Amino acid sequence: MSIADLNAANDDIEAIMADIGVRARAAAKKLATIPTKQKDAALLASATLVRANAGDILEANAKDMEVGRSKGLSAPMMDRLMLDDARIETIAKGIEEVATLKDPVGDVMADWEQPSGLNISRIRVPLGVIGVIYESRPNVTADAAVLCLKAGNAAILRGGSESFHSSRAIFDCLEEGMTAANLPDGAVQIVPTTDRAAVGEMLKGLDGNLDLIIPRGGRSLVERVQNEARVPVFAHLDGLCHVYVDRDADLKMAQEIVVNAKMRRTAICGAAETVLVDKAAADRNLRPIVASLIEAGCEVRGDDATQAADGRVKPATNQDYETEYLDAIISIAVVDDVKDAMRHISEYGSDHTDCIVTENSETAVRFLNEVDSAIVLHNASTQYADGGEFGMGAEIGIATGKFHARGPVGLEQLTSFKYQVRGTGQTRP
Amino acid sequence: MSIADLNAANDDIEAIMADIGVRARAAAKKLATIPTKQKDAALLASATLVRANAGDILEANAKDMEVGRSKGLSAPMMDRLMLDDARIETIAKGIEEVATLKDPVGDVMADWEQPSGLNISRIRVPLGVIGVIYESRPNVTADAAVLCLKAGNAAILRGGSESFHSSRAIFDCLEEGMTAANLPDGAVQIVPTTDRAAVGEMLKGLDGNLDLIIPRGGRSLVERVQNEARVPVFAHLDGLCHVYVDRDADLKMAQEIVVNAKMRRTAICGAAETVLVDKAAADRNLRPIVASLIEAGCEVRGDDATQAADGRVKPATNQDYETEYLDAIISIAVVDDVKDAMRHISEYGSDHTDCIVTENSETAVRFLNEVDSAIVLHNASTQYADGGEFGMGAEIGIATGKFHARGPVGLEQLTSFKYQVRGTGQTRP
Repeated sequence: MSIADLNAANDDIEAIMADIGVRARAAAKKLATIPTKQKDAALLASATLVRANAGDILEANAKDMEVGRSKGLSAPMMDRLMLDDARIETIAKGIEEVATLKDPVGDVMADWEQPSGLNISRIRVPLGVIGVIYESRPNVTADAAVLCLKAGNAAILRGGSESFHSSRAIFDCLEEGMTAANLPDGAVQIVPTTDRAAVGEMLKGLDGNLDLIIPRGGRSLVERVQNEARVPVFAHLDGLCHVYVDRDADLKMAQEIVVNAKMRRTAICGAAETVLVDKAAADRNLRPIVASLIEAGCEVRGDDATQAADGRVKPATNQDYETEYLDAIISIAVVDDVKDAMRHISEYGSDHTDCIVTENSETAVRFLNEVDSAIVLHNASTQYADGGEFGMGAEIGIATGKFHARGPVGLEQLTSFKYQVRGTGQTRP
Repeated sequence: MSIADLNAANDDIEAIMADIGVRARAAAKKLATIPTKQKDAALLASATLVRANAGDILEANAKDMEVGRSKGLSAPMMDRLMLDDARIETIAKGIEEVATLKDPVGDVMADWEQPSGLNISRIRVPLGVIGVIYESRPNVTADAAVLCLKAGNAAILRGGSESFHSSRAIFDCLEEGMTAANLPDGAVQIVPTTDRAAVGEMLKGLDGNLDLIIPRGGRSLVERVQNEARVPVFAHLDGLCHVYVDRDADLKMAQEIVVNAKMRRTAICGAAETVLVDKAAADRNLRPIVASLIEAGCEVRGDDATQAADGRVKPATNQDYETEYLDAIISIAVVDDVKDAMRHISEYGSDHTDCIVTENSETAVRFLNEVDSAIVLHNASTQYADGGEFGMGAEIGIATGKFHARGPVGLEQLTSFKYQVRGTGQTRP
C-alpha cells in the first residue's frame, strides 16, 4: 500500500490514535509484571527475525530511498535513511545487547524499618506507556522499542515519513518476536499513518494513555514536542557543550581534550562547540590550542584576543557562541577567570555537558558544583556524555530537564517506583 | 491596604508575575550553592520572628476571619483559616523542625568508576524555582516555603484570597528571617495580589522561570493546576484508598485496620474510602467488620451482600465507589478473590494508597507487586501514608504521578541531580 493510500484509509486519525492508546495502556498493565525471561525471549526472537528478514527490510528501504531521491533529500538525510547488511546486523546486535542488560523492574532501591515496626521498601516499576517520535533513522524503531519494553513499558512508535517503509519492515519483525514470546498484544505499536495529526494526538497525551514522549531527531522536532506536549518529555534541545581551559590547566592535556571534544565526532550532542580560555594563561595557552584545532581540520572562530593569537582565526559573533555547529567549527573566547567562564556557560550553554581542564582541585570542585548542567567533567572530553560510557548500557538519548531523568536516559530512567510497606497489623495512633 | 486597593495597584499582572519569576530564578542560582548553615540560620530566625510577631499575625488573621464571616464561609473553611496562639506555635516549631532535617543538596547518590578510569558520581542539586498554590490554610505559607528553601530552591507562594492577610503576615516573618541570614533577595516571594490571573501566569511557567508547581488545597484547585500547568506538578487529585480483606485475613487485625484506616482522621488523603471483602470468607468477616465500623460512628454503604449482612448498611451505588468521602462514611463491596479486588482498585482507585490484610504471604506479595499505586501496604493502616511515618520528616504532600516524586514529597523529592565526572585527561577513543 502506498503512503497516500494508507493515509486515505486512516482518515480518522483521532479515533485511530485513541485506539492505539487504549491498547497500549492495556498492554502496559500486563507488561508491568511479566518476567524478565519472557521479555528477553521476545527480544532475542526479534533479533533473529530482523536477521532472517534482512531482504524484506532492504527492499522496504529501497522504496524509501527512491522516494527520498525523488524528493531531493540532502546527502546526510539520505545517509541517515540508508540501510545495508552491516546496519541491519547492528540493529540485531543492539537488540541482543539490551536482552543482556539487567532488568530494572523489581529492583529494591531502598529498604528500611520505621519505629512503628513497618518495613518500607522502594521498588522500581515501569513508567507505563512511552511514545517515541523520530525522523529519518529507521534503526530507532528497534533501538527505542526494545529499551522501553525491557523496562516493562508499552511503546508507541511514530517514525518519519521518509523512513516509513523501512521502519514498518523492522517493526514487523519486532511484532512477530513479541507474539512468539507471548507478550501482550499492543506491547509495541507503530502509528500506521504519516499524517502529522497523529503527532498532535500523541502530544495531547492520548486521553491519559500516554505517560512520556521521547523525541529523537532534529532541533525543530524536539522544540515542537517540548513546546506542545501535555505529558512529560525526556530530551535535550541543544548540546552546546563548553571546554574551559583554566589558568592552572596542563596545556598538553587541554589540547588533547579540546581536539577530542570537538573533532572525535562533530555531529553528536556531546561534541564541544565553544572553548573558553582563562585570560591569566591566555598568552601561554591560546595559540597552541588554536593551532591544534586547525591542524585537526577545525575552523576556529574567536574573539579579538583569539584572532590576535593566530591569523587563521575568523571573527566570532555573539551568534557563534549560541550555535551548536554539529560540524568541524568551534568558537573560542577568552574569559577573565573561572567565575567569568561559568557566567558564559550559564548565559550561552544548554545545560547539557561542560568541562573544566585544570590541575587546581579547588577550582575544579567549584566548577563541578556551580555549573548547572546535567553532566560536568573535570579533565575529560565532553564526548564521554554517553550512556554506554557511563556504564548504563544502551541509552535512548540525553535529557537536560531536571525532572526524573537527567543526563543519559537508559533503562533505569525509563522506570518509576512505588513504596511497598509491610506490617504486622499496625494501626496509626 | 485593602485587597481591592492592592489588586488595583497591581493591574499589570503579567508584568508583575514575570518580574517575580526573574527574581526567583536569580535567587535560585545563588541558593543552589549556599551552605546548609546559612539556610538553617534563616529558618531559625524566621521561627523566632513568627513567635515575636504572633500579635501582628493574629491581627491579620482577624481581618481575614471577618471577611470570611461576611462572605459566609463554611465552618470547616473558617476552621482552616483560623489561627490562635497554639497554631502559631505549631508553625514556628514546624520551621525549626525543618532546620534539623538533613540538607539533601550535595548528597552523593551513587559513585562508581568506569573502565575508562573516569570516576562518575550522581549528586543531588536543587530543582530550581517552585511555585506553591494554596487555599485557605495560612500555615502553608511557612510549611511549604521552608521545605523548598531547605532543599535549595526559590519559592513563589500564592495563597488563597481568604487567607490573604494572614499569609502575608507570616510571609513578612519569613522574609525578615531570610534577610537576617543574608539569603538572596527573592529566595521566597509571595504573590502580592489575589487576582486569579496571577495563577494563570504561574501555570504558564513564568517564561521558563518556574520549574514545578505544587498545589495544596481542594480537588478543584488540583484539577485546574493538573489540567492547565505547562510545568511539572506534584500532586494527587484524589486519595481513594482501599482496604482489601483477603480470605486469609486475621479477622481481628482486619477490623482494627479498617476502623483505623477510616476513622482515625477521616479528612486526610490516606483515609480509606472503600473496603473490599473476599467472598470466600465474607460469611465470617463481613458482619463483624461492618459492626465495628458502625460502632466507631461510621456510616456504611454496601452492595447487596453487605446489606444482607447487617440491616444498618445503606445501599451503595457505583458513584459511592468513586467517591472520596473525606468523612465518616465508607463503602463496602464483596469481591470474588484478590484478582477481583485488584480489578476493582484499578477501576475505581486513584493510585494513592491501598492495603491488603492477609496472613497469606503469597497473596500479599501478589497484591504488593500488582497494585499500581504509589503506596501499597500489607497488614497496616492506610493512614500511614505520610512523610513523617515514612521517616522523611516534613512533607509538602503526596504525589500520585509516576514522574520524579511518587508518594510523600519530602526534601529529597524537591531536588534533582547532576553527574560529576572526574578524569585525568581522558579523551574518548
